[in-house]
Amino acid sequence: MTPKVSIIMGSTSDLPIMEGAAKLLDELGIDFELNALSAHRTPDQVLDFARNAHARGIKVIIAGAGGAAHLPGVVAALTPLPVVGVPIKSSNSIDGWDSVLSMLQMPAGIPVATVALDGAKNAAILAAQIIGTGEPEVQQAVIRFKESLSDKVVKANQQLAAIKFKHKVG
Amino acid sequence: MTPKVSIIMGSTSDLPIMEGAAKLLDELGIDFELNALSAHRTPDQVLDFARNAHARGIKVIIAGAGGAAHLPGVVAALTPLPVVGVPIKSSNSIDGWDSVLSMLQMPAGIPVATVALDGAKNAAILAAQIIGTGEPEVQQAVIRFKESLSDKVVKANQQLAAIKFKHKVG
Amino acid sequence: MTPKVSIIMGSTSDLPIMEGAAKLLDELGIDFELNALSAHRTPDQVLDFARNAHARGIKVIIAGAGGAAHLPGVVAALTPLPVVGVPIKSSNSIDGWDSVLSMLQMPAGIPVATVALDGAKNAAILAAQIIGTGEPEVQQAVIRFKESLSDKVVKANQQLAAIKFKHKVG
Amino acid sequence: MTPKVSIIMGSTSDLPIMEGAAKLLDELGIDFELNALSAHRTPDQVLDFARNAHARGIKVIIAGAGGAAHLPGVVAALTPLPVVGVPIKSSNSIDGWDSVLSMLQMPAGIPVATVALDGAKNAAILAAQIIGTGEPEVQQAVIRFKESLSDKVVKANQQLAAIKFKHKVG
Amino acid sequence: MTPKVSIIMGSTSDLPIMEGAAKLLDELGIDFELNALSAHRTPDQVLDFARNAHARGIKVIIAGAGGAAHLPGVVAALTPLPVVGVPIKSSNSIDGWDSVLSMLQMPAGIPVATVALDGAKNAAILAAQIIGTGEPEVQQAVIRFKESLSDKVVKANQQLAAIKFKHKVG
Amino acid sequence: MTPKVSIIMGSTSDLPIMEGAAKLLDELGIDFELNALSAHRTPDQVLDFARNAHARGIKVIIAGAGGAAHLPGVVAALTPLPVVGVPIKSSNSIDGWDSVLSMLQMPAGIPVATVALDGAKNAAILAAQIIGTGEPEVQQAVIRFKESLSDKVVKANQQLAAIKFKHKVG
Amino acid sequence: MTPKVSIIMGSTSDLPIMEGAAKLLDELGIDFELNALSAHRTPDQVLDFARNAHARGIKVIIAGAGGAAHLPGVVAALTPLPVVGVPIKSSNSIDGWDSVLSMLQMPAGIPVATVALDGAKNAAILAAQIIGTGEPEVQQAVIRFKESLSDKVVKANQQLAAIKFKHKVG
Amino acid sequence: MTPKVSIIMGSTSDLPIMEGAAKLLDELGIDFELNALSAHRTPDQVLDFARNAHARGIKVIIAGAGGAAHLPGVVAALTPLPVVGVPIKSSNSIDGWDSVLSMLQMPAGIPVATVALDGAKNAAILAAQIIGTGEPEVQQAVIRFKESLSDKVVKANQQLAAIKFKHKVG
Repeated sequence: MTPKVSIIMGSTSDLPIMEGAAKLLDELGIDFELNALSAHRTPDQVLDFARNAHARGIKVIIAGAGGAAHLPGVVAALTPLPVVGVPIKSSNSIDGWDSVLSMLQMPAGIPVATVALDGAKNAAILAAQIIGTGEPEVQQAVIRFKESLSDKVVKANQQLAAIKFKHKVG
Repeated sequence: MTPKVSIIMGSTSDLPIMEGAAKLLDELGIDFELNALSAHRTPDQVLDFARNAHARGIKVIIAGAGGAAHLPGVVAALTPLPVVGVPIKSSNSIDGWDSVLSMLQMPAGIPVATVALDGAKNAAILAAQIIGTGEPEVQQAVIRFKESLSDKVVKANQQLAAIKFKHKVG
Repeated sequence: MTPKVSIIMGSTSDLPIMEGAAKLLDELGIDFELNALSAHRTPDQVLDFARNAHARGIKVIIAGAGGAAHLPGVVAALTPLPVVGVPIKSSNSIDGWDSVLSMLQMPAGIPVATVALDGAKNAAILAAQIIGTGEPEVQQAVIRFKESLSDKVVKANQQLAAIKFKHKVG
Repeated sequence: MTPKVSIIMGSTSDLPIMEGAAKLLDELGIDFELNALSAHRTPDQVLDFARNAHARGIKVIIAGAGGAAHLPGVVAALTPLPVVGVPIKSSNSIDGWDSVLSMLQMPAGIPVATVALDGAKNAAILAAQIIGTGEPEVQQAVIRFKESLSDKVVKANQQLAAIKFKHKVG
Repeated sequence: MTPKVSIIMGSTSDLPIMEGAAKLLDELGIDFELNALSAHRTPDQVLDFARNAHARGIKVIIAGAGGAAHLPGVVAALTPLPVVGVPIKSSNSIDGWDSVLSMLQMPAGIPVATVALDGAKNAAILAAQIIGTGEPEVQQAVIRFKESLSDKVVKANQQLAAIKFKHKVG
Repeated sequence: MTPKVSIIMGSTSDLPIMEGAAKLLDELGIDFELNALSAHRTPDQVLDFARNAHARGIKVIIAGAGGAAHLPGVVAALTPLPVVGVPIKSSNSIDGWDSVLSMLQMPAGIPVATVALDGAKNAAILAAQIIGTGEPEVQQAVIRFKESLSDKVVKANQQLAAIKFKHKVG
Repeated sequence: MTPKVSIIMGSTSDLPIMEGAAKLLDELGIDFELNALSAHRTPDQVLDFARNAHARGIKVIIAGAGGAAHLPGVVAALTPLPVVGVPIKSSNSIDGWDSVLSMLQMPAGIPVATVALDGAKNAAILAAQIIGTGEPEVQQAVIRFKESLSDKVVKANQQLAAIKFKHKVG
Repeated sequence: MTPKVSIIMGSTSDLPIMEGAAKLLDELGIDFELNALSAHRTPDQVLDFARNAHARGIKVIIAGAGGAAHLPGVVAALTPLPVVGVPIKSSNSIDGWDSVLSMLQMPAGIPVATVALDGAKNAAILAAQIIGTGEPEVQQAVIRFKESLSDKVVKANQQLAAIKFKHKVG
């Protein structure tokens, strides 16, 4: 079977964040692969990967990286596929600003679709939304997922109702 | 004919930036529409728009906004389509940080695919890449566009070759 | 009985901060309600809430949110009531800057009265001051509360007096 | 006649921003006064002003200041009235961050309702919303003002409709 | 005996930092006092204090504060004495930027001599240097203190010498 | 005659800012000198200067610098005199943050009394306040200067009184 | 003849900054070349260039880039030569922070020797210092250059001496 | 034997970071020395050290410092050798920004080759690359080191392969 999403990261230290993307794709029933690639340590593999991903049937690439985060941008330069970037607040990061800015501020011609700091889960949803533009059943899965988000608010209201204050009304 | 991309913005003061997206979609041959919508001033129209865009055949929404930039996030909450956010450095912005952060840092479940500050052109390319995942001819247009980017570097080299220094070699 | 203040938040993860507002309103004897609402997850309820709050007798809305914090702004767009925003430093926040800027930097026409990061207690005082502009007994409660603040400084002086240093005088 | 809003500022260099508040109050038909006061240069007058404003019939104080902006906080410490702070990006400001943070981050007990950088217009709207909680005709004026905001979006759509692109649809 | 330095702070939560100043003044043999004062909670006492400190024989005021840190500036406005400000990274501070900027960026005419974040020890040295401009024996104490600083570097070198590496030379 | 204040700077590009200090000292009748010194370009002169300034009768050193601003700190390390640092927003500065932080954040033992960005005028006032701790007539000059500050506010009120609005009262 | 330094940049828009490096190398008598290369637009050329530069006799690579500035890091990953990075404040940069952080914060194993924002001149000096570690005559040129820096301070002193103030001494 | 690299730091509190540089030089077989020096506490030793290092056979100086980090810059001003600066996030640092900016933003003429916050390991690699420009066997050691970096990515892939998800492919 062919994966539709390729999740890539530079090191296993990024895995605790990036598995959030894997879990959500799993939940949404979207086939994916998981690869370690480094813009700096394995540049040839990155070129091979980026140039051939679309021909292998990949639809979206999700790339996580911390610090001076070049992986999403370097891949984006070489593929016609949309690349979703997940900035990661790694241990020697300057509060995450470095990874956010080195993904977000890509030059004209080579966008990286950047999500929130450590926002791997949202990267998976974005990937599903992208695939859903061409596959109606994936779009349906996204619609069901978004509907389920309101349940969390319903439960929050139940918890808030249980809190007692003298002047709380209703 | 049905537009595939909907470019939305809250005010015409955002147009000088956002028309960069329109021009590039035009160049890539992708049908689009241009709408003014405001998360704060026309909330009902925003809800209508966001809930029905996918049923009208729209594939990608590009939303530009400055300051406390809520439009992309509010639309993203209501549509199964991918929403590309363009943070705009408006006149009373705090150096653009406000619009960047109020798009990028969306909560889990509702991603906005954020591009560079004032990066409307890249939003259009991202939209083309997204549509290209389902339409091979659009992916071909993206591939041709990316190939054309290297021409700029070739020209830059010609200009650099023309500069004379005593110790410049080659 | 009719609540005069409505405290809203997007998720119970914001409750440890937001109950600071509830406790202070309780202490000041002002009736309030506590609701979970999400600009992104329950947009219709937000619209209903915001459009009808003033007709239900609410005088002030206190809205807490973290990250790309849209709830106060989206509510402010739809109500003639003053909306007090409490930016919250949530776990994946970029040091709180995201929630501060996405509340503070609202566009012209739709203010959010923003207080300090995690400043829910001050939001309650501000709500009391606002209600006090029309209800003298609430203004009296605010005056008494403000007078009580100096007690803390008196106690601090007693503690400082107890510390011994060789060259400390008085 | 008694003014309901007092607009204060430390120097006439703040007037180009602060007159935005005066103009909007004028438009909304709310009586106001305009005073120069400085937390640092005329501290006694500030104390007199702040302690007596509510007894004179003032309902809301709007205070603008730049740099290390202490005026709103110092006044807020002494009045039971809500104080709306307008951070101003003055000439020697560090991009406005100084005035924003020295208003927003007030200690527990003494809130300043902070609006956007240079957001004097929004300060006036907030003042009207506050007065409107006790005076129905002012609340009606706020409702009409908010309704008028959508007109700007309608006009924006007309301008967008006039722009021609080859692939623009509708 | 008359204190020469007055150390003031708004709350005992600032004491763990501010006692660094007290300890160093003690070590340098300079008489001081320790007071709790709040620009917001005890404004009248602040005015009294600030207006009379120089007449009581105080030479330097050291003021510590966190968040929107107005105490040093408000005191500086009312005294002809030099005021040394110690920005404190309090619990709800935005990484200390708020207290730094609300002290440092004082308007023209009212300087606050700002030292490093949590730099109470340096505030005491600065106070000693200031007093030393008029009292030669205090200047001598400063000279001895500065000479002692190099001892720390000598000890550091002894520790570094004890570390073994294969390629470490000397 | 012996100067009491030494104003130093690394380059004449800092003069337009630093002459603000010279002018105010002149106005206050305090003798001063003006020197160019560079922590990086003339280190020996800096050492000579810093080690001997107090013996020459200098009471306060005012040091202006931009970018990685080392001059005030390097001088402060070698003199028992108080050093007032003026961070300057030079042309290649990162918005002034570099000069502010490289002065303010001095290590324990070597304070620099930092004033606002481009705040040379305030550096002169601080110098006068410092000298005034030992010379009553200088303290009197400071008192007169501070009293004159309120005049600016009186004039501002006259200007504000002249502005007409329909709903302006008083 | 073989160049010892290779100056590379992604676009001619970086030339006004980067020619500062070329001019200074010229002045120091060090042979160099000037190339346009883009990490994103011409990745294959970048790989070829980076892998072969040391074999061609290049000693140092100076790479300038703005925004999400990947060029220095991508080259550094592939060469055993030291790479000096010049962050450039390009037009759509977020005040230069993006280019600074995406060079400076390189992951362990692949350093980029980063200089000041727009600091191309310093990049050239650093290159000369590096080459000077192996070539005594280049080190001598660096020594002469550094000695010449003090002349600027001498001239500054002459200019300062010419300024007249009533209380200026010496 | 003569050391080729001199690692300097201001205090042993910097040692846990700086020993990363020592360990890597050891691993690469490059002789080094380890010294404590302080720009502020032992200025004469710093001048001696900086002026004579190249005559002693040192090729590269690695200087670590936190806060207002002047050591690398002060040394760089006095030596013809390349100085590599390691900004350190010390305990009272403002998130590391102070040490980064006070090294990076050096004035024209005196570069510091700045590496990542706490990036001592990268400083050692940069030192090896610099020495390698004149010593082929050191350049060979760098080449072998860089090749070894890809091993980490190979191992990461093995770990990723071991993780099971229902929809993970390959």
